[in-house]
Amino acid sequence: MRGEYKALWLNEEGNLVVIDQRVLPFINQRVTITNTKECVEAIKNMTVRGAGVIGNVASFGVYLAARECEADIKKLEEKAKLIRCSRPTAVNLMWAVDRMMKKARNSADMINELKLEAIKICDEDCMASKKIGDLGADIFEKILKEKNKTSIKVLTHCNAGWLAIVDNGTALAPIYEAKRRGIDIEVFVDETRPRNQGANLTAWELEKAGIKHTVIVDNTGGHLMQHQMVDVCITGADRVSRGGDVANKIGTYLKALAAYDNNIPFYVALPSSTFDFEIIDGKDIEIEIRDAEEIKFIRGVDENGNYSKIQIVPDNSPCLNYGFDVTPSRLITGLISERGVCKADKKEIQKMYEDIL
Amino acid sequence: MRGEYKALWLNEEGNLVVIDQRVLPFINQRVTITNTKECVEAIKNMTVRGAGVIGNVASFGVYLAARECEADIKKLEEKAKLIRCSRPTAVNLMWAVDRMMKKARNSADMINELKLEAIKICDEDCMASKKIGDLGADIFEKILKEKNKTSIKVLTHCNAGWLAIVDNGTALAPIYEAKRRGIDIEVFVDETRPRNQGANLTAWELEKAGIKHTVIVDNTGGHLMQHQMVDVCITGADRVSRGGDVANKIGTYLKALAAYDNNIPFYVALPSSTFDFEIIDGKDIEIEIRDAEEIKFIRGVDENGNYSKIQIVPDNSPCLNYGFDVTPSRLITGLISERGVCKADKKEIQKMYEDIL
Repeated sequence: MRGEYKALWLNEEGNLVVIDQRVLPFINQRVTITNTKECVEAIKNMTVRGAGVIGNVASFGVYLAARECEADIKKLEEKAKLIRCSRPTAVNLMWAVDRMMKKARNSADMINELKLEAIKICDEDCMASKKIGDLGADIFEKILKEKNKTSIKVLTHCNAGWLAIVDNGTALAPIYEAKRRGIDIEVFVDETRPRNQGANLTAWELEKAGIKHTVIVDNTGGHLMQHQMVDVCITGADRVSRGGDVANKIGTYLKALAAYDNNIPFYVALPSSTFDFEIIDGKDIEIEIRDAEEIKFIRGVDENGNYSKIQIVPDNSPCLNYGFDVTPSRLITGLISERGVCKADKKEIQKMYEDIL
Repeated sequence: MRGEYKALWLNEEGNLVVIDQRVLPFINQRVTITNTKECVEAIKNMTVRGAGVIGNVASFGVYLAARECEADIKKLEEKAKLIRCSRPTAVNLMWAVDRMMKKARNSADMINELKLEAIKICDEDCMASKKIGDLGADIFEKILKEKNKTSIKVLTHCNAGWLAIVDNGTALAPIYEAKRRGIDIEVFVDETRPRNQGANLTAWELEKAGIKHTVIVDNTGGHLMQHQMVDVCITGADRVSRGGDVANKIGTYLKALAAYDNNIPFYVALPSSTFDFEIIDGKDIEIEIRDAEEIKFIRGVDENGNYSKIQIVPDNSPCLNYGFDVTPSRLITGLISERGVCKADKKEIQKMYEDIL
């Protein structure tokens, strides 16, 4: 579980250590989570973010909660509820807590079994990430062949790399795999306001991996696509409906519109746990509204090299901060999961998951 | 020419005074332009910006250049060229310099006549702004009537208020007029990365005018439109082709796509001088690439109240900074100029300007 490219791991005391994603790439700092309260806080304040990692942290959170309440299932149910509703949109969170609680209710050696289950969830995400990487890189190769090109330009929004989903991420997994295969690849990284996960996290990941990339503001992708400067778009997802609608970081919908308008394939990469089969129409996905301060202030490094925040919106102007939007299935070329690639279409999704639906 | 809501004016020495738009709203500072070099610098470094105001500053710049070279027409031609190419996309700049030079070549009392001509250009922009305000507010009233609503929500991108086009601006003119008419209006203001003209300038203008507004990041407009939280979009323009394609601040195209996808009217407001009748297809409009530092660093007020800049993109990640994009005419509901409202369509534009085409 532990390595240079891991967003979280258990330390020797059995506590959860995470990379503090609020201050990357300017500060490389770790936060230790020892109990339910700290787990909820870390998810809420975005010390950790990214659909997969939120699910993983929640899983370990249930384990830590069980340890905290000494395996009292009643107390654990209460604590698990707090973790489960720490953020409303990403479904991996709910999925992971539900799975952990199912295990808790049926375990003889609760604390130990929950620890193993949380590790298992992470390991499964790793395997999903590997598979998504392979499938996505195959798609890249196919595009190169069709276009008779030797280099591919990919646009991504937000961060769906190893900081978001353990190991190689989802949207970035095919990019990492392409690099391994020796494909000449360049990534346009959407800054991703207001929290700049693109400029801060994706750019940092790609730079560490030696992958050619260019940061653009969120406004620029449309222009690049109009001029065929992008061969393919790929993003992660926070929740995908049974009909193939994709809730992802706010602004994803705009990029999908531009891709569709310019005949550029738009893929969404996700582990199967990101599906919410209870929801058919993406319109029914709850969209989180976050604090306006996230728009009003921005963090970075000042001229003296100190990490600091500045105000960029006037005092008396209110801000409205939706965290996600829903991209309708009609704009999506395909969904890439560890099970394979399918159309963002109710029938195809049904077919791919017929064993559990 | 002088007033509280003017972006530029001549002082008693006959020099041009402008509001420094780089530091608004955090610092209210004026810059005095006395010669060609200072004029070119102010346009290049965006002390002044906005299609109209760039044209106005260029007009006064030609007057100052004539004064500088003591009405030597040969020297003036050289200086005018420098002003004319200080920025490549906004056509009002070229239009204004050409008009001023035509006057210069045919004047008996060059310096004085150029001063009067520059003032005349500003006054014409004021009149255009007034007319655009009336026409746009009529459209708002029509939308309210059609929807049987009592309040209207408008989304705008970048700044096309009085800081951009003297008096009331273009896109904001109908909003100011709606306020005068007592219409219940709310404005969603796109932050407008990378230079934040929305969050910094439009928000400031609207707050000063007591108009209800909410700042959103550029990623959010699509979500709002999907949920019919926007009744109409309106932006300015930097150059409009004879076919009705609109070059405007980068990101405009994405909002137009979202408006089209959700059946929300998308209007573009412009003085007639923003048309480039030489260009039929918007694809032929030159798009300015600006310094990557504009993405890498951001300015605002730090915790001690000092105006400062911070770095928000890692050192080793390159940035690409296109200033504008082109929204194809098919996505635009109508063009509002001082001549009236017309479709963004070659035939309709031809008809409206048949006296000069």
